[in-house]
Amino acid sequence: MSDTVKYLLPEDRIPKNWYNIVADLPEPPAPILHPGTGQPVGPDDLAPLFPTELIMQEVCADREVEIPDPVRDVYKMWRPAPLFRARRLEAALDTPAKIYYKYEGVSPSGSHKPNTSVPQAFYNKEEGTKRLSTETGAGQWGSSLAFAGNLFGLQVDVFMVKISYQQKPYRRALMESFGARCVASPSNETDSGRHVLSEHPDSNGSLGIAISEAVEVAAKNDDTKYALGSVLNHVLLHQSVIGLEAMEQMEIAGDHPDIVIGCAGGGSNFAGLAFPFLGRQLREGGNTRFIAVEPAACPTMTRGTFAYDFGDTEHLTPLVKMHTLGSTFVPEGIHAGGLRYHGMSPLVSHVYDLGLIEARAYHQIECFKAGLTFARSEGIIPAPEATHAIRAALAEAEACKVSGESKTILFNLSGHGHFDMQAYTDFLGDKLEDHAHNEADLKQALGGLPDVAAE
Amino acid sequence: MSDTVKYLLPEDRIPKNWYNIVADLPEPPAPILHPGTGQPVGPDDLAPLFPTELIMQEVCADREVEIPDPVRDVYKMWRPAPLFRARRLEAALDTPAKIYYKYEGVSPSGSHKPNTSVPQAFYNKEEGTKRLSTETGAGQWGSSLAFAGNLFGLQVDVFMVKISYQQKPYRRALMESFGARCVASPSNETDSGRHVLSEHPDSNGSLGIAISEAVEVAAKNDDTKYALGSVLNHVLLHQSVIGLEAMEQMEIAGDHPDIVIGCAGGGSNFAGLAFPFLGRQLREGGNTRFIAVEPAACPTMTRGTFAYDFGDTEHLTPLVKMHTLGSTFVPEGIHAGGLRYHGMSPLVSHVYDLGLIEARAYHQIECFKAGLTFARSEGIIPAPEATHAIRAALAEAEACKVSGESKTILFNLSGHGHFDMQAYTDFLGDKLEDHAHNEADLKQALGGLPDVAAE
Repeated sequence: MSDTVKYLLPEDRIPKNWYNIVADLPEPPAPILHPGTGQPVGPDDLAPLFPTELIMQEVCADREVEIPDPVRDVYKMWRPAPLFRARRLEAALDTPAKIYYKYEGVSPSGSHKPNTSVPQAFYNKEEGTKRLSTETGAGQWGSSLAFAGNLFGLQVDVFMVKISYQQKPYRRALMESFGARCVASPSNETDSGRHVLSEHPDSNGSLGIAISEAVEVAAKNDDTKYALGSVLNHVLLHQSVIGLEAMEQMEIAGDHPDIVIGCAGGGSNFAGLAFPFLGRQLREGGNTRFIAVEPAACPTMTRGTFAYDFGDTEHLTPLVKMHTLGSTFVPEGIHAGGLRYHGMSPLVSHVYDLGLIEARAYHQIECFKAGLTFARSEGIIPAPEATHAIRAALAEAEACKVSGESKTILFNLSGHGHFDMQAYTDFLGDKLEDHAHNEADLKQALGGLPDVAAE
Repeated sequence: MSDTVKYLLPEDRIPKNWYNIVADLPEPPAPILHPGTGQPVGPDDLAPLFPTELIMQEVCADREVEIPDPVRDVYKMWRPAPLFRARRLEAALDTPAKIYYKYEGVSPSGSHKPNTSVPQAFYNKEEGTKRLSTETGAGQWGSSLAFAGNLFGLQVDVFMVKISYQQKPYRRALMESFGARCVASPSNETDSGRHVLSEHPDSNGSLGIAISEAVEVAAKNDDTKYALGSVLNHVLLHQSVIGLEAMEQMEIAGDHPDIVIGCAGGGSNFAGLAFPFLGRQLREGGNTRFIAVEPAACPTMTRGTFAYDFGDTEHLTPLVKMHTLGSTFVPEGIHAGGLRYHGMSPLVSHVYDLGLIEARAYHQIECFKAGLTFARSEGIIPAPEATHAIRAALAEAEACKVSGESKTILFNLSGHGHFDMQAYTDFLGDKLEDHAHNEADLKQALGGLPDVAAE
């Protein structure tokens, strides 16, 4: 047990460039379409929502994009994030596998989200934005944008799904501690919110409604832009710092991953770790497997369709081609709120469609069980989302035990569970239930996909 | 802003020895006394409660005590802890002071407590203990011992003050996630608990009652020992890793602290950072100031008496000479639960009595305000206890601004506040009140101090 357990890098090893997998793909991803015309959107179409630099990154095909110095200076507050060798977990599992994990919970909000909230806030500040509007479900993205906005002097308005606003007051306190304004959605502050409230005064809200409210505020106010915490290309670009650091750390460890694993809601933490490794494999060859893990309650890749769809339920967003369950599909209320999204990042969907990655779905009870095994060995309480990656890592480690192989497994521990202890209270009290997706709901939602001429 | 903000050390720089300030003191501290005889206790008196090695450390006068390899191996899970230069805080305060903080919140339980829970569990395991019993108020110590006991295969029973058990279910979930059994105190499991319940069936419990229950379980069961999370000499010894690492990190930073600050409840996080620096100053000279910060609601050093007193309200413990408010003094229910103890570590009390350190008390609202200033600059939500150290650091930085001096301030950020968000919710909602100590209560409690012949 006296060998190295964590691999740290000095601050000057924070990557100087983000990595863009588009440059290494065998075929380019499908373009974003305008919902009215069915034609590819241009920068002008997106200008009301995003600053120019982020729009350019969204369509960028360069392999590397320079990280501005003020962004790297903020990254220094917690990056490089540590890479751990899970020696105690390996011993507890009695597996010949070598298990590594990249730990993103060391950030101010406790997850990988600030990797993109910081550059998003920076570019908005540079281009004169005064206020950012966004939505949040469980609150991880909202608190990450609150942190970043505060550092760059931007007002941050977060539309928080009302049921979460009421049930998760501590995430709200975290956002407010970082200076953001947090509004229960549906609210009376937007047409979208008022419209919902007029028909459903007692609405609990949904991520789709909250997105509509946040987008509306940005579209109607010149000094306000919208910020999204996953799904889009520029978000995945920013998250590549995870994998770029991990590649260097694995080299220091003298090891190379046979299997790379991440949980996948919108896809950004999976892609953040996996894409730099996948890109190298596309350029130089190799046989690393990449596994995206989703919840059985929201099986976007394993049960959804690869098609153009809207990002929100109110159909205010552009159309993106992605694995989707249909924009009206509402997953069961599992604790992994960050994985409850009907769509998957277009880039992750694209590489899945190309057969470059695998996908797998697990139920929440087996995930929490894996999470507890991990916590008792490694001392870190994982976020409910991250327990899905742990569940897959444990399955692969078990397979090694059966086969006798000593494979190297690397997974992304995307965040800690300090603000999710109700989930652990429920799990320890045997109050959790498993939820598969509802087949009839899925059929109905997929039946409502938009017709897109350009496809 | 592009200068270094954090100073990391590799795993092999975890100290190989703990530092014991007793070796460098101008006069030795007063002995622990047997409450029945008033004479110094011998190892046999303490044997029912503690393993031999910890008893020997309690009375040890050697400057260095070797850290066993299995303990260093567990320390590797999070140590060396980072030292940060608070450049963004300095900028926000517009102060010429240089502010550094040692961050102990990176541990599995989010505070400095595992620095001692791990060796305590290790020595108990070595000597055949099967079960550890302890008490916890807010839950930081209980969760730290739960983590350590689990790693070494010991059952951990935590008597948690009933009002906290009910109000802080997430700390309880953390303890149970690490495999401990958590019992609301007063309980029906001990004579002490049953006695209290027979007289006060609706008792909310207190730390004093919980200590009595935990001590009773250890005293009555051969396979069970008691574990304490602060106050005692061996606890302060283990916490010296904080200061030993910080000394090396400050050297790397090319700086030397003019002022060292820590909050003080039982005294172990303050001593952990301060004593290695103070010991060097006693040996080699220097003019660093050391400031222990306590809450105005529980002003043990600034308003208490230096005298022999009991550690618990039921008077089951030995007598120790310390700054005390009297063992029957019950502080107001401030959010910094870890600072609500009537006594102060005998070693901290001794160096305070010798004039080697300063003490200072603050009200909780000014502390939370300082904590929020810190969080918005540095991205870490501090534990309510740690906001007291921040408050003092900000006062010293403000003094530098007035005088124009560029002093170097180092404080101990003893833990994060992720499990204390109710406190921030109350603060942000203007629901916090300041509480000074009650003068009449204090007079009465101090009037009840034990007569000790040997003093």
